[in-house]
Amino acid sequence: MMQNIYIIGIGLIGGSLALDIKRKRPEAIIHGIDNSEDHLNQALELNIIDEKAALDDLEKADLVILSIPVDASVELLPRVLDRISDFGLVVDVGSTKLDICEIVKEHPKRRNFLAMHPIAGTEFSGPKAAIPDLFQHKTNIVCEVEKTAFKLQEKALNLFSEIGMRMRYMNPESHDKHIAYMSHLSHISSFMLGKTVIEKEKNERDIFDMAGSGFESTVRLAKSSPAMWTPIFKQNKENVIETLEDYIANLTQFKEMMEKDDFDGVYNEMKDTNYIKQILNGIS
Amino acid sequence: MMQNIYIIGIGLIGGSLALDIKRKRPEAIIHGIDNSEDHLNQALELNIIDEKAALDDLEKADLVILSIPVDASVELLPRVLDRISDFGLVVDVGSTKLDICEIVKEHPKRRNFLAMHPIAGTEFSGPKAAIPDLFQHKTNIVCEVEKTAFKLQEKALNLFSEIGMRMRYMNPESHDKHIAYMSHLSHISSFMLGKTVIEKEKNERDIFDMAGSGFESTVRLAKSSPAMWTPIFKQNKENVIETLEDYIANLTQFKEMMEKDDFDGVYNEMKDTNYIKQILNGIS
Repeated sequence: MMQNIYIIGIGLIGGSLALDIKRKRPEAIIHGIDNSEDHLNQALELNIIDEKAALDDLEKADLVILSIPVDASVELLPRVLDRISDFGLVVDVGSTKLDICEIVKEHPKRRNFLAMHPIAGTEFSGPKAAIPDLFQHKTNIVCEVEKTAFKLQEKALNLFSEIGMRMRYMNPESHDKHIAYMSHLSHISSFMLGKTVIEKEKNERDIFDMAGSGFESTVRLAKSSPAMWTPIFKQNKENVIETLEDYIANLTQFKEMMEKDDFDGVYNEMKDTNYIKQILNGIS
Repeated sequence: MMQNIYIIGIGLIGGSLALDIKRKRPEAIIHGIDNSEDHLNQALELNIIDEKAALDDLEKADLVILSIPVDASVELLPRVLDRISDFGLVVDVGSTKLDICEIVKEHPKRRNFLAMHPIAGTEFSGPKAAIPDLFQHKTNIVCEVEKTAFKLQEKALNLFSEIGMRMRYMNPESHDKHIAYMSHLSHISSFMLGKTVIEKEKNERDIFDMAGSGFESTVRLAKSSPAMWTPIFKQNKENVIETLEDYIANLTQFKEMMEKDDFDGVYNEMKDTNYIKQILNGIS
């Protein structure tokens, strides 16, 4: 039974988890903890949480979900674990996994912690961004599952399966390395595309009439929250820098092909990359 | 009256135009011309065109739409204009406008030509990619409108308004310069993102389970047709190279900030670029 569920950080992810969990476990009480009193009040009004709570209440928790920026998670997690009972489980859902696993490696309550990363989201943030069914058919990367008490992981993973997540197991090093390519790089490429266009066109607002669905799709992630993404890039610095080096090298090579009028080369680059179709068909 | 409409190139754009025009002008006969007999047969089966035709039939045309790769358009347009009657209009819909306007500058039938670029599309191609309502609320850039006979432009622009296009007028130089930022750069950034990820992960197919909606959206344009895009980059070479230089410089600066642990700088870059939200809200 998971009666008392505490969500620390009632934003897009925490709020969406609250909505889905409440539908599957109508008997559960969803307690919300957030630095922002405004966000807590919004979450109450939107029926995302049942009541407000504080860290000192966590001894009553059956499940705690930590869904705050990854730098804050690393700082807060040990203090959350200090307060949890032997029967409570703490789950974090951040986009980096190495630092968070490292910080609790020797914690006496390590078996009461489960590290995971549900790969789901939108470019919006805050409780108003919470939506039902966000995790339907989405991959959830679970790290160091063997370090979590079996009964606790079983209860939690059953719940997360019920709200639609598909589990994949990976060590934190591999997670951080691959997610840099599959997610973090996309965000930077999109932010820098937005920056390049804004810098060039800021004095010519009419030009944005020329934005088509292609531009919108490619620049969508540039709407994302800097408060969430800055700590992710900081924690995953080495891997992200490596992806940027690869990306910049590929762009530079493409530019040099154009400069040398090697348009057969340009054609082949694009033809080869069309292979992404098969890959994406495989996943969706 | 536009009774006889010829569409040269029955792909995504030509086919979608055919579908919308037929709905607004049920009395019109849509004639299809295409290098690919397969595409012509598909277009007939899909009721996108009423009949097949050949270049020699164009003297009967009231309207000809040229929707083929931009290098082929520049080559074919003068020969199409040679065949057109005084009462026929030829429209091209390519993504570059300078070369096409240049090639017919001195053509005796220049007044029977209208250069335009409807900013609409998907990442798919061919007649099966044709969809109704593709042009609803989409910007159509019209170049050198003053060089087209008034009665012909009026008839054509009325028709294109009826299928939902919003006209914007611009000279070909400005079109090519700005579209490099608003469209061509997005395609290259997306292709190179796809390439970077495929190169890194090609031997680890499981990793693509980590692809979320963010990656899918940012890499979507990498599914686009190389046969269509290579000639666009070739014709707009100087402008596209300039956008790539700006983009690479911004990515490099971002990487250097990370290397120097300047995460306040990283935060501010993203915060400033969030301004794209207001811009995109303004357009959609």
